[in-house]
Amino acid sequence: MSVSEMRDTLVAELDGVERLIDSIGQDADVPLLGQLLRHVLQAKGKRLRPRLAFMAARFGGFPIERLTLLGAAVELLHTASLVHDDLVDDAETRRGVAALHRIASPKAAVLVGDYLFAKSAALATATGSLDVMALFARTLMSICDGELREMSNANDDDRSLDQYYRRIEGKTASLFVAATEGGAILSGIGSVGEQAFREYGLNLGMAFQIADDILDFVGTPEVLGKPVGGDLRQGTLTLPAIWALEQLGDGVLRRAVDSKNPSNELLDEAIRFVGSSAAIPFAQREAEEFARRARYALAPLPEGPDRQALEDLATYAVRRRY
Amino acid sequence: MSVSEMRDTLVAELDGVERLIDSIGQDADVPLLGQLLRHVLQAKGKRLRPRLAFMAARFGGFPIERLTLLGAAVELLHTASLVHDDLVDDAETRRGVAALHRIASPKAAVLVGDYLFAKSAALATATGSLDVMALFARTLMSICDGELREMSNANDDDRSLDQYYRRIEGKTASLFVAATEGGAILSGIGSVGEQAFREYGLNLGMAFQIADDILDFVGTPEVLGKPVGGDLRQGTLTLPAIWALEQLGDGVLRRAVDSKNPSNELLDEAIRFVGSSAAIPFAQREAEEFARRARYALAPLPEGPDRQALEDLATYAVRRRY
Repeated sequence: MSVSEMRDTLVAELDGVERLIDSIGQDADVPLLGQLLRHVLQAKGKRLRPRLAFMAARFGGFPIERLTLLGAAVELLHTASLVHDDLVDDAETRRGVAALHRIASPKAAVLVGDYLFAKSAALATATGSLDVMALFARTLMSICDGELREMSNANDDDRSLDQYYRRIEGKTASLFVAATEGGAILSGIGSVGEQAFREYGLNLGMAFQIADDILDFVGTPEVLGKPVGGDLRQGTLTLPAIWALEQLGDGVLRRAVDSKNPSNELLDEAIRFVGSSAAIPFAQREAEEFARRARYALAPLPEGPDRQALEDLATYAVRRRY
Repeated sequence: MSVSEMRDTLVAELDGVERLIDSIGQDADVPLLGQLLRHVLQAKGKRLRPRLAFMAARFGGFPIERLTLLGAAVELLHTASLVHDDLVDDAETRRGVAALHRIASPKAAVLVGDYLFAKSAALATATGSLDVMALFARTLMSICDGELREMSNANDDDRSLDQYYRRIEGKTASLFVAATEGGAILSGIGSVGEQAFREYGLNLGMAFQIADDILDFVGTPEVLGKPVGGDLRQGTLTLPAIWALEQLGDGVLRRAVDSKNPSNELLDEAIRFVGSSAAIPFAQREAEEFARRARYALAPLPEGPDRQALEDLATYAVRRRY
């Protein structure tokens, strides 16, 4: 199934999520908050997480209103974490020029992120499911855990693959789990199905993030919408760079990573080095292994087009080409 | 009942909350996080909010484990909001000297605050009560609403008493409600009792915050642990200053408030002006009116030492002298 085909399904359901999210920017009765929320929420993204919640729920009952609440809750949790993540990354970006103009309103980012966490908690609660609430709380803790690991590890010695996997599990995969397991819980398919969707979401999220981290090295600025190698420029080491550092000895990458204030030329060279090295096919194989595990996790579910769509999504997640 | 007498009751219960909160600093498996959490959690405060939860629960069943979870959840929510509030206030403090050294680690404050929100959500969920979860989500939204109003209104024209009351309801009173109504919910006293404790917590919180805002003008640096008039120095107008601006015409306070960069001398003079003006007895009467409403809200509850203790707490909250 291609991206465009996927986008043709679940239109009405995702419209409902969209309307619920839009209403949050309209409801705010502090004018400044409304303005900031609408700004943040206008970048709509692919709504992959709400889509996953609906896809998971197709195997049981399909309580559309509660699933809409869940989809919006997961999407807002994602948005909140991005707002705080951007703030945190900018605060650390001492190499770049942009840091100064971000200092102008860190407070707004803190409070808008908090508000989105709160709204997300309120929506998760409105599903009326204690299990969804518990899942929500675990997800929020996982996200924080992932972000804190990233903060601890940036420019640090602890650059193992293990640490990387724990970081992206917290930052990315946990939100996929919230969507898929949450959808399974609300659809009432029972504990075997919930477990299947927990493992599916976890492995899909890992595959998805690794594919993203590969693209950061091999994409073009036009399609990425930002400079190539953005993570390395910010001092964050992702899978390709970690593997290259470990396996490819002391070259330009080591010099760029060890330098307190690397030049743009050095960074450009290091990014090109990683992007054309064996680190990329290694990372691609890792992503494909997670995608395989995601498909495998679906084994307990009945075969058919709904399961096939989920399997296709995992396959597609690691084969994105822009 | 005096402060020292109050501190002699509920010792075992509050010890349980203390142990639970302490364990959070120990559990963190990201070393930096543990260090930062222990730093934040070492300032223990009066634990007034957990105490209120236990006091409320005395009118029904007293499920000690769930109340301990609630007490710790409310306290951590309070701590999280303080962490982000401090960050936000410092980011705005362009007048003071301290702003620069705070810019060094805004990211840690963002993430540790987020982690505490997450942990608090997890503890609230662990009570197993959907009503407590819904209350928790509402509280988090109220806190954000209050903080956002404060950000919108600092150095702004919207300096009405009404805005002030909405701000402190969100920032302070909502957490008192979470404690008292949450305690009532878990003790199973039913909707009339829950409503009584919602109103008690709300009015007690308002009284408490007004008393705090009075002390900020009439206390001494030694007992406050910070300079007198800290709010005004940060550009935040509280009840005494708002009333003085409205009622006492255009003097030194107006000059200090309207100045983009007031001198310390001007601020000192404005603070002394407010602290010795009729604004203080006005604010005191407002605080006493909220305390009266808090006591009145308890009318549906059976009389006896437990109700008396809550009434005394309201009376004491507005008569603090340091």
